[in-house]
Amino acid sequence: MTNSIKTFAPATVANVGCGYDVLGFALEEYGDELTLTERKDDQLVIEIIQGVSGIPLDPAKNVASVTIRAILKDLKISKGFNIKIKKNIAAGSGLGSSASSAAAAAYAVNKILGAPKSRKELIKFAMEGERIASTKAHADNVAASILGGFTVVRSYDPLDVFNIPYPEDLRVVIIFPQVEVKTSDAKKILKEEVKLSDAVKQWGNVAGLVSGLIQHDFERIGNSLQDVIVEPIRSILIPLYREMKTIALRAGALGFSISGSGPSMFCFVQKNSDSSIIIERAKELYGKSGINIISFVSRINNVGVKTLD
Amino acid sequence: MTNSIKTFAPATVANVGCGYDVLGFALEEYGDELTLTERKDDQLVIEIIQGVSGIPLDPAKNVASVTIRAILKDLKISKGFNIKIKKNIAAGSGLGSSASSAAAAAYAVNKILGAPKSRKELIKFAMEGERIASTKAHADNVAASILGGFTVVRSYDPLDVFNIPYPEDLRVVIIFPQVEVKTSDAKKILKEEVKLSDAVKQWGNVAGLVSGLIQHDFERIGNSLQDVIVEPIRSILIPLYREMKTIALRAGALGFSISGSGPSMFCFVQKNSDSSIIIERAKELYGKSGINIISFVSRINNVGVKTLD
Repeated sequence: MTNSIKTFAPATVANVGCGYDVLGFALEEYGDELTLTERKDDQLVIEIIQGVSGIPLDPAKNVASVTIRAILKDLKISKGFNIKIKKNIAAGSGLGSSASSAAAAAYAVNKILGAPKSRKELIKFAMEGERIASTKAHADNVAASILGGFTVVRSYDPLDVFNIPYPEDLRVVIIFPQVEVKTSDAKKILKEEVKLSDAVKQWGNVAGLVSGLIQHDFERIGNSLQDVIVEPIRSILIPLYREMKTIALRAGALGFSISGSGPSMFCFVQKNSDSSIIIERAKELYGKSGINIISFVSRINNVGVKTLD
Repeated sequence: MTNSIKTFAPATVANVGCGYDVLGFALEEYGDELTLTERKDDQLVIEIIQGVSGIPLDPAKNVASVTIRAILKDLKISKGFNIKIKKNIAAGSGLGSSASSAAAAAYAVNKILGAPKSRKELIKFAMEGERIASTKAHADNVAASILGGFTVVRSYDPLDVFNIPYPEDLRVVIIFPQVEVKTSDAKKILKEEVKLSDAVKQWGNVAGLVSGLIQHDFERIGNSLQDVIVEPIRSILIPLYREMKTIALRAGALGFSISGSGPSMFCFVQKNSDSSIIIERAKELYGKSGINIISFVSRINNVGVKTLD
């Protein structure tokens, strides 16, 4: 019998307004699937990538195989696998496409090897995969995709990641205009230095968002979902950003910001609020300019990467 | 009968490591007392300042009278008061000396007028007093002194201040070497620009500290009490800072940082830990260099400014 496993890793929203490189959360029912099948030799072979084009099949350049290689190397295990990836998240969407593949791969190989690593330990290996896609091994997407829920990357050195609670009634609206922003490009235009006064505003909002989530204070969550450092720069790359934000806030969204490096945008709403208005108006707005959007309402996924049968 | 009231406002620790200008908390049994007595004319007269020297008696330059004047002006009330201040907190200690006087004054005049303002509303008037002492109307000390507990100044414009819960068992050790650092000097040496990578570390720690406090996670509180932006600069002005920090951390302190702009330092400990060791070793360390210190262990004061009988 050949050892084979199929995993699903959710799409994620990183940065979450004020928490650049630190905050993230996982989405429900939207993510990548990966099937890992043991080979008799020690090769990693990307058999097929379904769903989106332009993802490298070269195992040295694909986030899934690079992640698997990193885990095998750490465990000093010599094994080969065939890898099938079904991508539902477009690369360059700002919804953690590469992180999702890395998370699915890390979880799959760990499971097939008898789970020598904990979920938290898998994060650093998935970060190695992330590095291939975005030149920097950031953890905010992979942490959320692996652990699920709302995650904080408190520190990168040493890596310290944990979940924080959030209100059951919190919902996320995603607006993903079909234009591509490459993470590596989006990172490039950020300035290396920021005003201390802006940084203070940012960590004031981080304090507000984190406490608002844990204490279920929706008003505070909405007030704190502000970003004076990254949004003013990155939003330039997103068509109709300001108009979309105004529409969402007028329709009752609790804050509005860029998901990851964009172009996807997100806002929070409370469970029973009429989020369909936001989506309708987004379709109208982008429709007028001939830009298709993918839009949906999601809970926060509190499971993270998992096995599919 | 002459209307008279006596108030007590606690000393405070602002910044709290990673939360420059945003986080603060109040200390127990250490603070300023203020007695306000109505006059027949509309003059504000500083009758006496006990405890420390060098505090201005000129009502245009004293934080207490400036705060009172701001409240009277806002309420369009013409009244005069004699003001007696008993200062227990030395100016330039880093323990919110001016904020304590401003908080005591704001609370006293509001009480004598029948409490037209809420505690939260008093903060912006006490900030006007603070501006006199430190050239900038910062809110982190006055918010903590007025509200008590652990406070977050999420935003200055609009002013948004709230309390967050903290573990009952949390204790603070204060080490105050008897050398003066003027807040206005200490602010001056901070750079106006900071590295984005440092700012990210800072808000990662803010997320950790805030969630650690609310979730009663002492290990996370200790890990998060780090400051890569302000401490490296301000600690230069504090004699033996690095040595003191090493001693405290070795003795089991949960983090160690500067209180406000210093020279006072603080660390957290858990209720039943042996904080006396930290204080003994601090006395030894500073004693060898002929520097007196004031040191004590305190709970977090959850009452804030109050009336004394």
